[in-house]
Amino acid sequence: MEYSAAQIAQLLGGQVEGQADVKVHNLSKIEEGKPGTLSFLANPQYTPYIYNTEASVVIVNDDFIAEQPVSSTLIRVPSAYEAFAKLLELYNQMQQEEAVIDEHAFIAPSAKVGENAYIGAFCYIGKNVTIGRNVKIYPHTYIGNNTRIGDDCTFFSGVKIYNDCVLGSKVTLHSGVIIGGDGFGFAPNQGEYKKVAQIGNVLIEDMVEVGANTTIDRATLGHTIIRKGVKLDNLIQIAHNVEIGENTVIAAQSGVAGSTKIGRNCMIGGQVGIIGHLKIGDNVKIAAQSGVGQNVADHQIIQGSPAFGIGDYKRAYVYFRKLADMAKDIDHLKKYVQKQQNS
Amino acid sequence: MEYSAAQIAQLLGGQVEGQADVKVHNLSKIEEGKPGTLSFLANPQYTPYIYNTEASVVIVNDDFIAEQPVSSTLIRVPSAYEAFAKLLELYNQMQQEEAVIDEHAFIAPSAKVGENAYIGAFCYIGKNVTIGRNVKIYPHTYIGNNTRIGDDCTFFSGVKIYNDCVLGSKVTLHSGVIIGGDGFGFAPNQGEYKKVAQIGNVLIEDMVEVGANTTIDRATLGHTIIRKGVKLDNLIQIAHNVEIGENTVIAAQSGVAGSTKIGRNCMIGGQVGIIGHLKIGDNVKIAAQSGVGQNVADHQIIQGSPAFGIGDYKRAYVYFRKLADMAKDIDHLKKYVQKQQNS
Amino acid sequence: MEYSAAQIAQLLGGQVEGQADVKVHNLSKIEEGKPGTLSFLANPQYTPYIYNTEASVVIVNDDFIAEQPVSSTLIRVPSAYEAFAKLLELYNQMQQEEAVIDEHAFIAPSAKVGENAYIGAFCYIGKNVTIGRNVKIYPHTYIGNNTRIGDDCTFFSGVKIYNDCVLGSKVTLHSGVIIGGDGFGFAPNQGEYKKVAQIGNVLIEDMVEVGANTTIDRATLGHTIIRKGVKLDNLIQIAHNVEIGENTVIAAQSGVAGSTKIGRNCMIGGQVGIIGHLKIGDNVKIAAQSGVGQNVADHQIIQGSPAFGIGDYKRAYVYFRKLADMAKDIDHLKKYVQKQQNS
Repeated sequence: MEYSAAQIAQLLGGQVEGQADVKVHNLSKIEEGKPGTLSFLANPQYTPYIYNTEASVVIVNDDFIAEQPVSSTLIRVPSAYEAFAKLLELYNQMQQEEAVIDEHAFIAPSAKVGENAYIGAFCYIGKNVTIGRNVKIYPHTYIGNNTRIGDDCTFFSGVKIYNDCVLGSKVTLHSGVIIGGDGFGFAPNQGEYKKVAQIGNVLIEDMVEVGANTTIDRATLGHTIIRKGVKLDNLIQIAHNVEIGENTVIAAQSGVAGSTKIGRNCMIGGQVGIIGHLKIGDNVKIAAQSGVGQNVADHQIIQGSPAFGIGDYKRAYVYFRKLADMAKDIDHLKKYVQKQQNS
Repeated sequence: MEYSAAQIAQLLGGQVEGQADVKVHNLSKIEEGKPGTLSFLANPQYTPYIYNTEASVVIVNDDFIAEQPVSSTLIRVPSAYEAFAKLLELYNQMQQEEAVIDEHAFIAPSAKVGENAYIGAFCYIGKNVTIGRNVKIYPHTYIGNNTRIGDDCTFFSGVKIYNDCVLGSKVTLHSGVIIGGDGFGFAPNQGEYKKVAQIGNVLIEDMVEVGANTTIDRATLGHTIIRKGVKLDNLIQIAHNVEIGENTVIAAQSGVAGSTKIGRNCMIGGQVGIIGHLKIGDNVKIAAQSGVGQNVADHQIIQGSPAFGIGDYKRAYVYFRKLADMAKDIDHLKKYVQKQQNS
Repeated sequence: MEYSAAQIAQLLGGQVEGQADVKVHNLSKIEEGKPGTLSFLANPQYTPYIYNTEASVVIVNDDFIAEQPVSSTLIRVPSAYEAFAKLLELYNQMQQEEAVIDEHAFIAPSAKVGENAYIGAFCYIGKNVTIGRNVKIYPHTYIGNNTRIGDDCTFFSGVKIYNDCVLGSKVTLHSGVIIGGDGFGFAPNQGEYKKVAQIGNVLIEDMVEVGANTTIDRATLGHTIIRKGVKLDNLIQIAHNVEIGENTVIAAQSGVAGSTKIGRNCMIGGQVGIIGHLKIGDNVKIAAQSGVGQNVADHQIIQGSPAFGIGDYKRAYVYFRKLADMAKDIDHLKKYVQKQQNS
């Protein structure tokens, strides 16, 4: 689909400067602008690009003053960034599938699906499942028996949710996400291991987003809990009975072992490991690749494996890099002392 | 479904103390007990909870003596822990799908499926596949041509098994497990890489359990082997031609590179990496996030990247944290010596 | 299927020595040879095995001279290794599915599929998708709207490709690969996070191979780019707007954060983490488990977390292991100096 600069300006409540009938069919970064695309300029650092971008239309702040000729058509708005973000969202919504139950989906007769749902081909919706309104469930998704799902959720192709889980509203799960697999619980038994039945579930609150191929295990008993607004990146492991507090974000490939509780508003880097049965406070930051082996108080910023204060870690690491020199110094000192003692 | 305390006591061969007709419909931890749930008390540490738990029924050891009033109905058994574990298992079995071949599954005419199988919707069972008795294969599972599967296996939704693999009995594979993908074998060829065909397979013995989204590559030639009783957690990578010995357990997100052989009864922590072509002995323990770069003898306990003896690692790490102080000390010593030499 | 030594010799243009009508039905390593299998001897280190291998047929170099009796039938060729590799490839091709569109696949009417394609059961091919010639797309694969795919690609069971992605020719994606999931982009907003729409795509060039359960996120705007000949192992994370140069290989469980650009012909070990917005040069090598926190020049070889020169890292780590001894030395020196100063 194509839109003219005039149409977009009207949508955004902005003013056109230049050719109002120029048409765009895609979005671009200003430094990579191509004819037929729409871009934006918000960060003053990128201002130089506006003088030679090939983007047909650029959204700018009301107060932008061109210091050289600009060949793109401009649309002036109070906030170029917000206007562009609004367009991104509209664009994204246009990509979504229409609300329809595909004839190749299987929905158990006892399941209930709210109005205005998209249920894609080859989806499997189990017994007694309840699903809210306006959900988008892409092909090959599996939802086990008795699982309950709120409104406005989007599950991309290939999500798997085991029995008895509970998800809130506005939850987004990317492809390959597994919710509710058995926790890793085995009791040693004469050199072998006997499985401990995992009969709890996973509870995911509103506005959670989970990245591709991330796994969240069900609780042994009770719940594994992902609180409101949590954002998990790809390939993360959340073990049984873990609880993650509101608005905590975790980067890709990190893992949290069983029964650990993480506070709210934490920021956890990629490839971090956190052992089981810990309590991590609120507003904690953990540097990428750290290993956390003990409780962490609120507002701590830590690094290392095992992790400690990030400043101390960085300082220690500076000396780690100089260890060969330090060893040489010690050697010289020892020789000096020996000589003194022998003399 | 609901059960009365009397019914459960009969099932467990226990004795009711209190209201025999109180009903429960779910299980709980004693410290989180709610009306309508059944809990247990085995660990004496949890005894205080029994005096104010809201659980309707609590299973206790025969010799439990209440020192305060208990409002829950009690069921006395010889071992509360074992009785509860038995209930967990029964509960879990009740969750399982009935034995039925779903009409939306595809099974190649040349495939053979044993009696009493559940094959879910949208499963794909390839040519010449043989599957034993009492298997549960959930929707969206793919089993490639010629693969052979034993009795009593459970594959959750979305398992993918490539051609020519061999799995024993009582094997549990969680959602997203990939068995038999090509090993990562490429021969350098004038700045590019030429694929080395991977024509071996994966061989999984009895009573193995594999966690969600774990990947086990096929051998280049011969077999990648997972021995009897091995337990693998989620998101683990097992490369081509690896062999893992009986009853070894590996925690989430660890990886084992090509052709490494791991002994029996090892315990390997999360996010561990083991390079290729190594021999790890029996009863070895490897701490989380360690990197193993050389052979490891039986009974070693190691940590670090690269890993060495865990005691030595912990000791070295204590001093790593003090490196800035050590450097300052060395500096002072050097200044002292310089002063001495100049005087 | 079975082949006689004579048939294989004819295929390879080799000469039979021994029983020409002996039959083989499988391939083996020479040290694990069994009756009915075909093996090869190329590496002189393995020569001792030829005198007691049970393999029925062994391919050897023209100039091989037996110093003891050999019971296997030999096939002499100019290069035993190349001849065997050729057989592996033939064997592998024989495993592939026939070109057929399965009746249980869904293909949108507006999608175009080139000639000679295999599209397996329960595949979903979205609107306006274009697919080249000779592709093999295994069951349960999902291809979102508008995605374009070249010739001779193979996607194993359960691959998921989101909307609007572009893949070249001879691309192999293993089971569970996710292409085009949303980048991890959230803007902080009064203690919560607001999703930044991810409307770019993923661009994969020719001859790329991607291992099982690896995830490659779409760009926020523009493209996440995987250049020609790149090989990615299993469970790797490639974030939004990353670019990976030609013929770079990355081992399992590594992760590359947003907007980082990696050069060509790099070799990156397993479980490596690379933070966002970096530039990694050409021909760089990164040791397993390293963490890369700054730009890396061409031809560097680095290790550590954070990573620096591999030689320096290894040297520092030698002293890390001796830190307790170094601390003791410092202590002795301090005591000596104190004593001197007091005397």
